[in-house]
Amino acid sequence: MTSSSSDSGTSANGSAAGSPAPKPPAKDPWELPDVSGLVVGVLGGTGDQGRGLAYRLALAGQKVIIGSRSAERARAAADELGHGVEGADNATCASRSDVIIVAVPWDGHAKTLQSLAEELTGKLVVDCVNPLGFDKKGAYALTPEEGSAAEQAAALLPGARVTAAFHHLSAVLLQDAEVESIDTDVMVLGESRADTDIVQALAGRITGMRGVFAGRLRNAHQVESLVANLISVNRRYKAHAGVRLTDI
Amino acid sequence: MTSSSSDSGTSANGSAAGSPAPKPPAKDPWELPDVSGLVVGVLGGTGDQGRGLAYRLALAGQKVIIGSRSAERARAAADELGHGVEGADNATCASRSDVIIVAVPWDGHAKTLQSLAEELTGKLVVDCVNPLGFDKKGAYALTPEEGSAAEQAAALLPGARVTAAFHHLSAVLLQDAEVESIDTDVMVLGESRADTDIVQALAGRITGMRGVFAGRLRNAHQVESLVANLISVNRRYKAHAGVRLTDI
Repeated sequence: MTSSSSDSGTSANGSAAGSPAPKPPAKDPWELPDVSGLVVGVLGGTGDQGRGLAYRLALAGQKVIIGSRSAERARAAADELGHGVEGADNATCASRSDVIIVAVPWDGHAKTLQSLAEELTGKLVVDCVNPLGFDKKGAYALTPEEGSAAEQAAALLPGARVTAAFHHLSAVLLQDAEVESIDTDVMVLGESRADTDIVQALAGRITGMRGVFAGRLRNAHQVESLVANLISVNRRYKAHAGVRLTDI
Repeated sequence: MTSSSSDSGTSANGSAAGSPAPKPPAKDPWELPDVSGLVVGVLGGTGDQGRGLAYRLALAGQKVIIGSRSAERARAAADELGHGVEGADNATCASRSDVIIVAVPWDGHAKTLQSLAEELTGKLVVDCVNPLGFDKKGAYALTPEEGSAAEQAAALLPGARVTAAFHHLSAVLLQDAEVESIDTDVMVLGESRADTDIVQALAGRITGMRGVFAGRLRNAHQVESLVANLISVNRRYKAHAGVRLTDI
């Protein structure tokens, strides 16, 4: 604004990484395992968020199974989505999948996971549930007894590898076939590097998306709750706001 | 992005906005009041975050007064920063400023504000404190009894106009004179549109920064706590991560 303003071809272009000084990245957020062969299940796959994620992952070439309490409803949603998406009841979805995304409403979160504890044993679980309340002033964060939805999942599924991710996506954009690129970073949380790497890689398969490691599960609450702020942003600016992390 | 509007010299200066479909912004995050004449006080201005903010705002042409318990220390820090920055004890800083940024350590937050309740009456207060704990696993969120540092400030300062902002900035980048642009969005929270507009405008004076309204104070906790996640990001990627909101 003031000062010389002369030089530097840095900055601008927007998206991420307006890194002022060029420097080699210590850890490349793209250096991740090949996950193209993994089967992804989406519990709550008939809801908006679940459908949107199923659609984007299938579009990227991933094998996707939508889970629902009703196998029939799951199959109907899968048929609508196309791209090889299958539908099944929740238990079958969990059993047949390598990675299971939990996209159920917060209300049914504990109950659904409790009922699938056996099928989810040994599986990589990705919780993307945002515990929110709503009143006339808008959305606000709920605080689960366990600290967060992800920590509740970890408590209920001691045999599963629980991670958290995909919280800040717009279900509207995900489901809109005319939107070619979902330009956002996905914060991935978890206790095991091997697991969070897989989830990051999965996020990275979706055009425009990048998975970024963003801490342990004990720091999931604020990531889940930030959706309340994005809802405020969206109301004020009539937008579908997403989050990018800069300098990486 | 361009569209018909001839006059408004607004629109995406390149910052964020990977907006997939071009559409006119409903509310332009740059359409804000002129704040160039306001005096900005920075409580805790001798700390890293406070010094960094004072430096950037002064660099942008803002009149800045650093506050500290010790007027002498404040003046020494101000002299180092240059650009017309002044130093004073906290009470004088608060009295002489129109907008007061609270950048004290969380430990001293309640006590400092309590002692300044009179001087801060009627003033626009911008809390940027992040209540965090640290152990060998890294940083984690603390939950103040009032919900957040910002809500604690509001409770302690019933006569002030309390907002929250500037949580996710890297003190390292802010203080580095070789870094010309701080490429990040600043989430601004508060109860009054007039007040959050002023804070957004203030953020927008710093090269690279953009102020974005991101909700009411009851949703401040997750914004404050997200710093724990950014610390994880910084450790993993050896970065100074910031946050951009897309689609606005």
